[in-house]
Amino acid sequence: MNPDIYTRRESEARSYCRSFPTSFVKASGSILTDEKGTDYIDFLAGCSSLNYGHNDPDMKAALIEHISNDGVTHGLDMHTEQKEAFLTAFEDIILKPRGMDHKVMMVGPTGTNAVEAAMKLARKTTGRHNIVAFTNGFHGMTMGALAATGNAGKRNGGAMPLQGVTHLPYDGAMGPDVNTLDQIEFMLENPSSGLDAPAAFLVEPVQGEGGLNAASAEWLRGIAALAKKNGALLILDDIQAGIGRTGTFFSFEEMGIEPDMVPMAKSLSGMGLPFAALLLKPELDVWKPAEHNGTFRGNTHAFVTARVALEKFWKDDSFQTELKSKARTIEMGLTSIADMVDGARLKGRGLMRGVDVGSGDLAEKICAEAFKRGLIIETSGAHDEVVKVLAPLTTTEEQFEKGFEILRDATRAALTENNQIAAE
Amino acid sequence: MNPDIYTRRESEARSYCRSFPTSFVKASGSILTDEKGTDYIDFLAGCSSLNYGHNDPDMKAALIEHISNDGVTHGLDMHTEQKEAFLTAFEDIILKPRGMDHKVMMVGPTGTNAVEAAMKLARKTTGRHNIVAFTNGFHGMTMGALAATGNAGKRNGGAMPLQGVTHLPYDGAMGPDVNTLDQIEFMLENPSSGLDAPAAFLVEPVQGEGGLNAASAEWLRGIAALAKKNGALLILDDIQAGIGRTGTFFSFEEMGIEPDMVPMAKSLSGMGLPFAALLLKPELDVWKPAEHNGTFRGNTHAFVTARVALEKFWKDDSFQTELKSKARTIEMGLTSIADMVDGARLKGRGLMRGVDVGSGDLAEKICAEAFKRGLIIETSGAHDEVVKVLAPLTTTEEQFEKGFEILRDATRAALTENNQIAAE
Amino acid sequence: MNPDIYTRRESEARSYCRSFPTSFVKASGSILTDEKGTDYIDFLAGCSSLNYGHNDPDMKAALIEHISNDGVTHGLDMHTEQKEAFLTAFEDIILKPRGMDHKVMMVGPTGTNAVEAAMKLARKTTGRHNIVAFTNGFHGMTMGALAATGNAGKRNGGAMPLQGVTHLPYDGAMGPDVNTLDQIEFMLENPSSGLDAPAAFLVEPVQGEGGLNAASAEWLRGIAALAKKNGALLILDDIQAGIGRTGTFFSFEEMGIEPDMVPMAKSLSGMGLPFAALLLKPELDVWKPAEHNGTFRGNTHAFVTARVALEKFWKDDSFQTELKSKARTIEMGLTSIADMVDGARLKGRGLMRGVDVGSGDLAEKICAEAFKRGLIIETSGAHDEVVKVLAPLTTTEEQFEKGFEILRDATRAALTENNQIAAE
Amino acid sequence: MNPDIYTRRESEARSYCRSFPTSFVKASGSILTDEKGTDYIDFLAGCSSLNYGHNDPDMKAALIEHISNDGVTHGLDMHTEQKEAFLTAFEDIILKPRGMDHKVMMVGPTGTNAVEAAMKLARKTTGRHNIVAFTNGFHGMTMGALAATGNAGKRNGGAMPLQGVTHLPYDGAMGPDVNTLDQIEFMLENPSSGLDAPAAFLVEPVQGEGGLNAASAEWLRGIAALAKKNGALLILDDIQAGIGRTGTFFSFEEMGIEPDMVPMAKSLSGMGLPFAALLLKPELDVWKPAEHNGTFRGNTHAFVTARVALEKFWKDDSFQTELKSKARTIEMGLTSIADMVDGARLKGRGLMRGVDVGSGDLAEKICAEAFKRGLIIETSGAHDEVVKVLAPLTTTEEQFEKGFEILRDATRAALTENNQIAAE
Repeated sequence: MNPDIYTRRESEARSYCRSFPTSFVKASGSILTDEKGTDYIDFLAGCSSLNYGHNDPDMKAALIEHISNDGVTHGLDMHTEQKEAFLTAFEDIILKPRGMDHKVMMVGPTGTNAVEAAMKLARKTTGRHNIVAFTNGFHGMTMGALAATGNAGKRNGGAMPLQGVTHLPYDGAMGPDVNTLDQIEFMLENPSSGLDAPAAFLVEPVQGEGGLNAASAEWLRGIAALAKKNGALLILDDIQAGIGRTGTFFSFEEMGIEPDMVPMAKSLSGMGLPFAALLLKPELDVWKPAEHNGTFRGNTHAFVTARVALEKFWKDDSFQTELKSKARTIEMGLTSIADMVDGARLKGRGLMRGVDVGSGDLAEKICAEAFKRGLIIETSGAHDEVVKVLAPLTTTEEQFEKGFEILRDATRAALTENNQIAAE
Repeated sequence: MNPDIYTRRESEARSYCRSFPTSFVKASGSILTDEKGTDYIDFLAGCSSLNYGHNDPDMKAALIEHISNDGVTHGLDMHTEQKEAFLTAFEDIILKPRGMDHKVMMVGPTGTNAVEAAMKLARKTTGRHNIVAFTNGFHGMTMGALAATGNAGKRNGGAMPLQGVTHLPYDGAMGPDVNTLDQIEFMLENPSSGLDAPAAFLVEPVQGEGGLNAASAEWLRGIAALAKKNGALLILDDIQAGIGRTGTFFSFEEMGIEPDMVPMAKSLSGMGLPFAALLLKPELDVWKPAEHNGTFRGNTHAFVTARVALEKFWKDDSFQTELKSKARTIEMGLTSIADMVDGARLKGRGLMRGVDVGSGDLAEKICAEAFKRGLIIETSGAHDEVVKVLAPLTTTEEQFEKGFEILRDATRAALTENNQIAAE
Repeated sequence: MNPDIYTRRESEARSYCRSFPTSFVKASGSILTDEKGTDYIDFLAGCSSLNYGHNDPDMKAALIEHISNDGVTHGLDMHTEQKEAFLTAFEDIILKPRGMDHKVMMVGPTGTNAVEAAMKLARKTTGRHNIVAFTNGFHGMTMGALAATGNAGKRNGGAMPLQGVTHLPYDGAMGPDVNTLDQIEFMLENPSSGLDAPAAFLVEPVQGEGGLNAASAEWLRGIAALAKKNGALLILDDIQAGIGRTGTFFSFEEMGIEPDMVPMAKSLSGMGLPFAALLLKPELDVWKPAEHNGTFRGNTHAFVTARVALEKFWKDDSFQTELKSKARTIEMGLTSIADMVDGARLKGRGLMRGVDVGSGDLAEKICAEAFKRGLIIETSGAHDEVVKVLAPLTTTEEQFEKGFEILRDATRAALTENNQIAAE
Repeated sequence: MNPDIYTRRESEARSYCRSFPTSFVKASGSILTDEKGTDYIDFLAGCSSLNYGHNDPDMKAALIEHISNDGVTHGLDMHTEQKEAFLTAFEDIILKPRGMDHKVMMVGPTGTNAVEAAMKLARKTTGRHNIVAFTNGFHGMTMGALAATGNAGKRNGGAMPLQGVTHLPYDGAMGPDVNTLDQIEFMLENPSSGLDAPAAFLVEPVQGEGGLNAASAEWLRGIAALAKKNGALLILDDIQAGIGRTGTFFSFEEMGIEPDMVPMAKSLSGMGLPFAALLLKPELDVWKPAEHNGTFRGNTHAFVTARVALEKFWKDDSFQTELKSKARTIEMGLTSIADMVDGARLKGRGLMRGVDVGSGDLAEKICAEAFKRGLIIETSGAHDEVVKVLAPLTTTEEQFEKGFEILRDATRAALTENNQIAAE
């Protein structure tokens, strides 16, 4: 690696490369390999964009075949064999069995674009401008979605007032004793609260960036009920928590809620290719042609791999069954970490888990020590205080075992280091 | 094709598929082939995202090799062999020979994301909120970039007031007799004009969506001078006009202007893969790590193909020389169309050309007739009044010849149809 | 009275005249007299703009003398004998004895103008745009102040999104068991809450329009402490609660808080003349000349009467002592009303009191019945559920006695009416 | 005078007192008298708030009588004898003879409040947010009106982005050779101009603060036609130019335009008392009661004096005839100044006139020299380059003669001073 090219030519905005200072040359399943031939277990999975692991052989094969055959690479939003096949698979394998009648809007291939489309459509269909988002929520970096993102550092990047969003406390945000639904209801019911009638509630069922906060089904049903009562739409941002991450395809399955819109991205393509979509109830589909568009909407390569992913992993419930078992593995692994750190507590749900170690400083040290030992893992939370496991869902039991062993070693090393500092 | 799947499951926002109602299965060079085996000459090129044509064999080969070798598909913004190679090639082949010291910011893989990053950075570095954009400008669909987009239909899609942008008239917007620099200067120099001091001027050297309006070098130098004088940055949006489209790699080369930032996307990957970047002067690079980020920033597949594209087409000036000749071919072809339509006039520059046929109705009929005859071509302009040629730059002389022949036939048919309607 | 002139020529925005459908010809002390010679006891006092009653004889005399002598009526913000005398009296009688070093900014003669000036200055001096206001707060109708006003009906009048303000729950807003300081602190301390760092907290010590909600000293000290800790200013809007209304000149005296800015209006002139001012800490006084101005800033007639008011009522503490006794009278009077209505409870503080009768319907009936019997009284609160007493502070014990007698009769009548409706 | 009280206790925002550093004790007709007994001819007239001069004897007498009789001083918006009399007089003397069917909305007693009400109503009735205002326009200091004000210094006082207004060039703004209607029409007709469909055009027939720029009748008719064609309302801000200032009661009379709304303030009360109103077409009067309100709306003292003013000056056309002759006097006086200064040119219309002396520096020197000689006069314009005459309309020929004599002396002194500086 020639690190100079990065300092010389890549913007200071680059970030993950700072935590993982090596150059990767290969990636397969849950293993990343760097230029020195070192293997790393990947507990980050492209921030949940690689739920099926790196370079799944079936997706690879299908994509190589598509390219070899001169299949369309870029087709704007014209009809292609691949788009038809994807839509058909998505309808048959995902929507129908779940009783969902949503339509699919092909947006620019990023999560933020799907969120922007949802926000625009919510405003357009309700004639209201305000959207309620939640503390610690993360929805993207473009100005519309950034307004709904809680993180102060990200918000300040906008360098001008953000508008059109009211932030209310997420489930559990003020501790277990405060039911934040009460506060939300109070703001909605009091006609002098200053809360403008919301076009929508925009909520992540599990907050990935915000610290792996998992909303309870009861709370989400409460939000759904408040939305309905107040003439607002329910937008469930499933960008990070969807596609099996919590154990089911959508993170909100079996919760008894029916979202009006679902922004999707990250693992939607299956192979880590840029791809995003917005699911929307048919009655909301008032878009005029190209009223919201984007050159790369509907990535054809991603149609190919996404279809393979649906057919391979979701046609029956074997994968989902497997996920339950892996979720327990992760819980046990993280419990072993939590047991080592005073006051630590588990966060998250399904295979989207973490351990709050009490401080960003410690969490960062743990991750740094883990990297030295061959594990790629990152922090999350408003203070970066959560060590977050977002391993590929296809990670084997052996890999989990090894990964958590490294994580324990890393935690031990980080605690020792902290103690030494404290002793000095 | 099963069109039902689209009406049943794809959002009404879909658009190009309405103009080209068939299903494509293959794409190579300048030819798209549909499921019936019909070949279409492509004069749209993914709205200039396929400047090197579909599935360039060298890019294909490199990409297939990369995938076959389990090269990284999704690496967030970690270092990879492919990123390093791309940055090095971009530095050596593009930046250095042009005396540019810009850094590259990897943004989400869409043009709008690059524009949003530029707008945020301009505000952040100047402490000013206002950005001057131009009539008929198009910069994207997310709320920040949408504010800079002129089109009323697109703007209304935002469904709430857009903010932070003042729109001033583009070069030639009010006809050849009005020098719009005077108006712009007046607004800037008059301290009571109501124009808030601009953080930046955001301008397309050629307006792709706005009607193929090409700014003169003199006008752009005037804007650059006004920016400098008023403490504002110059952002040249080269998303559609860049990567050879006007005959040089950047559309602003040889104009004597040095932009502070250059949003790039569309043909940057070379093969039509989602990829975008923001070039920025080093002194502006005050981003904190991840202050603006995005899961799909730095598409590794695109690094591979983009590097091949740079090495294949831009290492010496043979390609650029070829473009000059093709630009003349296009001009001649479009002149033959313009000669058929009363009052028609040529628009654009280089290989980003069109003919204003006076009405959107006629332009749309011409495009529809062309499609029937095997040519994919679209309109542009505030009233869709321009028949726009954005053929792959690699289109052969024979293909151009055939394409323009079809276009002449289509124009004739559309005019006949119009005359018949008029006669009735 | 010719009511036609009003329906024909006055805007539908008119309001109080609908509750009190007669035409007034005379006003003295606490008595308004209509054209038929009917006397009304005034328990509204121009919404607390007539704290010293109507046409105080000393103010009248001074004003008549001033006019007779051709004293300046309108002097923009030039120096006049009257302005000097007012400022001197305000310094000697109000500021110095209270240890306040605030400066006085002459703003346009309305409360909203004083609030707008305060909001602008808070943003200007802190470089932050966000201002925290509170549920049920009322600060004015112009777009800056309206953003800080909670009432949905008023807000909708703006007919576009209001910006720059976050609304958080006022003291007691969620019932006695919830300490809203916790929620406010949570939003401030969590860097991912989505609350942009506030330039200021804008708060009414007692919310006049919002339902006579009185913040506790402890809560206000908590807000003051949070403001200080977070680099935000404290703006205490004393427009309705100030000038003796709560028993002291300022409503926040003896609370141990030192506001950075205090918007004042309503009873500031003493006689009901349009007059407003903003008190601001000297270190905040960074205004450039006329940076915020207004043709009628510094009403000279009001300088005359305001000075008389200060000298007559605030030179020693006899008036303040008297207010304590009257506050008790009001409390007893309202208690007698509350005793008549199931679940009713007293609201407010000092001489700014009311009784929440549980529904806007009942409260309005009570006020309508009171008017029939010779008492002018209005409702307040998000649902107009509070019968509000804002009698002149100079109301005599007899007048209070008579007023409350009417109010009891009116309540009885309203309850009877309600019962009859219920029985039907 | 004790100047310390001002530096110690009045905000730095104070302004006119800096140009006229004395303390005034008396004011009658066109004469202000200071504490030393010096008389000043008033060519400023409270920025056109004293069109009938200071302390008109009939208005004084009526006001004293009203106060003496305990007439209502502050009546919120309840019916009073005085309001009825004012409305009746306004209908009979002003509206009916001019064929106007407008209703009167009593707003807070400042111009900015009337403008805010108009902007809100325009947005409410059209469902559009954007309002077109003009370069050099001045409409007030509260956040809604400030957005429509052009002056950069004033705008920056808002300390956050202002929204909802697009500024286009006023008549003549770019010199006599450019018809700015063309630019405005271009922005409106081009659906990709970026100009959001306007709710209203907000325009001053003569720009008082902006440099006494008088729009031609033709241009205003053009704006009216564009408004009509584009579904926008026409708001003529007559706050400074109205009430006889241009020679007729409204400044737009005899121009063939019918404004939808007319904000009025300044000289509306006749005597310089705070008073404002919004005239609005009956079909626009969709306000709900108190949807826009304000404690001091409908100043009863001002009703008294305003009625006297209407009856005294506007019942027949003798006053208006007189104004024509005085307009000529002013024109001759200012021509004599213009003749002394190279390149100077007359500005304005009627009795709202000035001379552009080419630089703010010279204009300020002239005004300072005039004050030394007993004349109160101010500058105007984006660069303060206009010496502005806003004398009371009741100024006698002798007073005008004497005033202009002083002005000529002052100009001579200022020019001499400038020449001396240049020589050094």
